[in-house]
Amino acid sequence: MKWISFNVDGNEQYGLYNVQEKTVAAVSKMEGSPKSFTEALGDPDFMEKAVRLADSAPRINESDIEWLAPIPRPLKNIFCVGKNYRDHAVEMGGKSSVPEHPMIFTKAPTTVSANHAPIPAYESLTDYLDYEGELAVIIGKKGKEISRAEAMDYVFGYTVLNDVTARDIQNRHKQYFLGKSLDSTCPMGPWIVTKDEIANPHDLGIITRVNGEIRQQSNTSQFIFPIDEIIHVLSKGMTLEPGDIIATGTPAGVGFAMNPKRTLRKGDSVEITIESVGTLTNKVQ
Amino acid sequence: MKWISFNVDGNEQYGLYNVQEKTVAAVSKMEGSPKSFTEALGDPDFMEKAVRLADSAPRINESDIEWLAPIPRPLKNIFCVGKNYRDHAVEMGGKSSVPEHPMIFTKAPTTVSANHAPIPAYESLTDYLDYEGELAVIIGKKGKEISRAEAMDYVFGYTVLNDVTARDIQNRHKQYFLGKSLDSTCPMGPWIVTKDEIANPHDLGIITRVNGEIRQQSNTSQFIFPIDEIIHVLSKGMTLEPGDIIATGTPAGVGFAMNPKRTLRKGDSVEITIESVGTLTNKVQ
Repeated sequence: MKWISFNVDGNEQYGLYNVQEKTVAAVSKMEGSPKSFTEALGDPDFMEKAVRLADSAPRINESDIEWLAPIPRPLKNIFCVGKNYRDHAVEMGGKSSVPEHPMIFTKAPTTVSANHAPIPAYESLTDYLDYEGELAVIIGKKGKEISRAEAMDYVFGYTVLNDVTARDIQNRHKQYFLGKSLDSTCPMGPWIVTKDEIANPHDLGIITRVNGEIRQQSNTSQFIFPIDEIIHVLSKGMTLEPGDIIATGTPAGVGFAMNPKRTLRKGDSVEITIESVGTLTNKVQ
Repeated sequence: MKWISFNVDGNEQYGLYNVQEKTVAAVSKMEGSPKSFTEALGDPDFMEKAVRLADSAPRINESDIEWLAPIPRPLKNIFCVGKNYRDHAVEMGGKSSVPEHPMIFTKAPTTVSANHAPIPAYESLTDYLDYEGELAVIIGKKGKEISRAEAMDYVFGYTVLNDVTARDIQNRHKQYFLGKSLDSTCPMGPWIVTKDEIANPHDLGIITRVNGEIRQQSNTSQFIFPIDEIIHVLSKGMTLEPGDIIATGTPAGVGFAMNPKRTLRKGDSVEITIESVGTLTNKVQ
């Protein structure tokens, strides 16, 4: 199943997207439905009922909706894993930069934007705006002190995420947060694919193209820290909640590590495809 | 004025606290009041009316309320400024560790707890649980690209915050987030003092005591980056919103920098007093 959030006549809705029919079953219009998809995620009884009765929900044509990020306004910052592909760690800082323990930083909720939403160029703020294609994990269940063995039970699904980064701001301020938190620098989507559709989240091809040129090409099998370990480490002492988003890190091939360095410029189109999950496309404006 | 959030019969409320009378005017019970204090902050017309008509709000005795953090559940992570007092930067890493640009990291919303709430000892997770007494700034108005000259217009008020930190986790994972985000490691309160009561936020004495012993003693005049500069830097490309919390950094005297290093242990009481703002007391359990 593919869950989406969208606007109709300026009202935020959510529902199940049908790729063949190009329609959405507006689950949020069903009786007793929570206000937002994040709230719905926190209500397993409703979610079970919603899936069962989705056929009776109002059906809307894709042409009549404005797509939003699947979680348009997360209830906390997005968790991000730094340097989770060995080749990217090496391209950024040599072998010594490969982490022994997961590096976690965050992006502000104000960074979230939709598939096809413009990425601002921020020309007055940064000389090195960069893309980072990533698989994002959506948490579906509240938990703490989660063992690796049980971790995947807490996953609701997956989406594609672009961790757009201002490299000079990231480096200037030491901690990554500021360079990662400019408004609209976290395009996400187009949908959340539920985990039952993904046979093995640790064997998904990931490709980032800029104006059609392949820049990043890898597979989630290359993670240094797999998803179950990330969830285990995050939840040591910290409660994970439904709707939490974990960006799992980016492979080699970012513009800042090219020779000469490349930066995103107005008009560039960034397209990230993750096998079995989807394609996220955003243009720099 | 002192704004507080509190529970009565399990219902979250907010209102104006009267220190002399030990009562609270339950503004959240007034007609048309937003559900949470964060929402109220985003509605300047309501806030103006609430202050004007507070005398007509139901009055509740302090003995009948359960105190909450003034913002019990922030809508995003708490912004924190790292090493914003020169003497603390030096004690943690020598002179080379004094930052040239503000270092910003975050604490998860799940860290927030109230005055007198227990700080978990996390003995199985950390050998170096540490206190950090800090002045916190509460943002009252949405804004972006805020100049230093206008920055203080965006401040609603101030509170006392303890940025409790697991030093070994902080160091092990490089980025500060994980070591700063264990549940209930961000006691805050007891109230938000509105800015009109603070003649000069850059001249406030700050003292942290552990079991009565003075550990940190400084003045906000020692900030490397003053509040207006922090707001200016944060808002470059990132929208600030009502209810955002900025922890402005901690002075020298943390346990980890003592010789020998000290850690918080079960039974320890941490008391942070900021002149004209208040005292925040929490016991480790």
